[in-house]
Amino acid sequence: MRALTVHPGVPGSARIEEIAEPHASAGSVLVKVLAVGVCGTDREIIEGSYGAAPAGEERLVLGHESLGRVLEAPPGAELAAGDLVVGIVRRPDPVPCACCAVGEWDMCRNGRYTERGIKALHGYCAERVRIEPEFVVSLPPHLDRIGVLVEPTSVVAKAWEQIERIGRRAAWFPRSVLVIGAGPIGLLAALLGVQRGLSVHVLDRVTSGPKPQLVRDLGATYHAGAVNEACPGVDIILECTGVGQLVFDAMRSTSPGGIVCLTGISSGQRLLEANIAALNRSLVLENDVVFGTVNANRRHYEEAVGALARADSAWLERLITRRAPLERWREAIDRGPEDVKTVIDLSPPPSPAPLSR
Amino acid sequence: MRALTVHPGVPGSARIEEIAEPHASAGSVLVKVLAVGVCGTDREIIEGSYGAAPAGEERLVLGHESLGRVLEAPPGAELAAGDLVVGIVRRPDPVPCACCAVGEWDMCRNGRYTERGIKALHGYCAERVRIEPEFVVSLPPHLDRIGVLVEPTSVVAKAWEQIERIGRRAAWFPRSVLVIGAGPIGLLAALLGVQRGLSVHVLDRVTSGPKPQLVRDLGATYHAGAVNEACPGVDIILECTGVGQLVFDAMRSTSPGGIVCLTGISSGQRLLEANIAALNRSLVLENDVVFGTVNANRRHYEEAVGALARADSAWLERLITRRAPLERWREAIDRGPEDVKTVIDLSPPPSPAPLSR
Repeated sequence: MRALTVHPGVPGSARIEEIAEPHASAGSVLVKVLAVGVCGTDREIIEGSYGAAPAGEERLVLGHESLGRVLEAPPGAELAAGDLVVGIVRRPDPVPCACCAVGEWDMCRNGRYTERGIKALHGYCAERVRIEPEFVVSLPPHLDRIGVLVEPTSVVAKAWEQIERIGRRAAWFPRSVLVIGAGPIGLLAALLGVQRGLSVHVLDRVTSGPKPQLVRDLGATYHAGAVNEACPGVDIILECTGVGQLVFDAMRSTSPGGIVCLTGISSGQRLLEANIAALNRSLVLENDVVFGTVNANRRHYEEAVGALARADSAWLERLITRRAPLERWREAIDRGPEDVKTVIDLSPPPSPAPLSR
Repeated sequence: MRALTVHPGVPGSARIEEIAEPHASAGSVLVKVLAVGVCGTDREIIEGSYGAAPAGEERLVLGHESLGRVLEAPPGAELAAGDLVVGIVRRPDPVPCACCAVGEWDMCRNGRYTERGIKALHGYCAERVRIEPEFVVSLPPHLDRIGVLVEPTSVVAKAWEQIERIGRRAAWFPRSVLVIGAGPIGLLAALLGVQRGLSVHVLDRVTSGPKPQLVRDLGATYHAGAVNEACPGVDIILECTGVGQLVFDAMRSTSPGGIVCLTGISSGQRLLEANIAALNRSLVLENDVVFGTVNANRRHYEEAVGALARADSAWLERLITRRAPLERWREAIDRGPEDVKTVIDLSPPPSPAPLSR
């Protein structure tokens, strides 16, 4: 069967390969992969700057944002052939930390987690994969091809859960959120903000392409200026770019008791001239919080499924600005300036047959 | 009666004045002030860089770390003449924000709070003061002169409560804390860390004077080197200096899932060359939290009283490295390099009478 693989650490080593069928040891649920979403982490792995192959192997099967259909499931797994499913990305170490031991592998304290398609475990960008039943998430059939958004939505569901848990350190009635970056994570974060009844503002640098209208169609407000001018006195800032200057601006721009949630990662290395003492003073005198969040555990995947099921499916489909079949995977990796989410289709719908009269 | 007053904004304007007895409108509990602790905020006010007099007045009575004895209390106030008490510092605005409305004025969201001795309300450094019963905290008599440490301990009790509430965003079993700065706040934070059963490390730059031994006598470890070398992999960092470089080092030095609590304020304005993108990356990939905390509400004062009552009173008394009577207030303001807490005594114990044979 075919898979998209890479030699981690070697730029330009990604290619389609014929590989063996997945070994039974990878999990008792056999899944036919329908689609795999592409994100910045995949691009970093392809560029050779991130990722690790399984122990003793040279190449890694890519892909962590999955969508598939069950081919075989063991008895008692509450799964049946034909079910639409997503595979969870992270796995705890066999000797788990305190968080992994209770299923919170997204909060892993010892760094010994593994991740399918990223770190020491083969990913989902293959025609068939095997998954352990406890790492399979079932989707309602009507989510259909939008189900490929479950994994990035799980990251956002975790971010919102953590914002709310941290917010409960005191009385808190947030009204507004500023999302920085209108990529897939930013737009999904905005969606979940709207679902919470908040006044949602989204900041990005583009003024053309689909992003401004996608924001407006959520009932949110689109901004293209400076962070501190987008929504003065905002209660929550959800930073989704990882760009140093924007992160620093976010930390300085909340109202008293504000929460800044960092979800973005950039490879930027530029040094900023920063007055950290003044930043500290405003964090202290205003009781502000800045926190980072990564990955997601099962409850976040389940929340993500619920959030997507409640959303307008036509709006969600518009987030997927490009779909390429497996053999043309490069088209999904090469992201255009107006792309939001790009997807590799492993099971594209059949081309319509020519009409016969 | 005598009081220590200042013209906010005017450096060098502090002096002892004769002022009128406190007006009944200030509160129904009349208190004879025994002592007032001095902190960095008092020094900033005396230097003319902070503070505000009550509306329509020019001068502000200083003092927010109080200790007194009730002279008169209204019926039903659960207070009686002779009770040892401390006055709470902050008051909510008559039109309270959502936090102030539930008694969490320390988390005030609209900035319209007032503070005795700091912002728009006369402080406690006068021979007699009046306080509203709901802002009076009773102390067990055996706390005696150590009671002047209740206010700074309330700040630390709030910091620990917030650390623990934020920590509960996920499974969390912290084992170690690094306190940066061995001033009064740092040493009291270390005490409350020891009371929680944590492995406590304290970092300061001095290697002489009472601080290293005060730390060791708590059962904690004293360090005088770099932040990232003091306690690698520490779960919690409690920053008590506000110095930009130390704040930045703290943000970069926790273990995965770590919490950095900022409590210190400095007037430093030096710009640092900071790689904010790299800081962001580590906050995100490790699920780290950085938060600021200021002030305290009633429950924190009550926790502070309990923490001081459980501690070794001889160790606490050693934190007070200088006591000066009101007329020599400058001796308490001028902090020496080895001072921890300095106190203005408004009711010093009488000098021993000469022994007669």
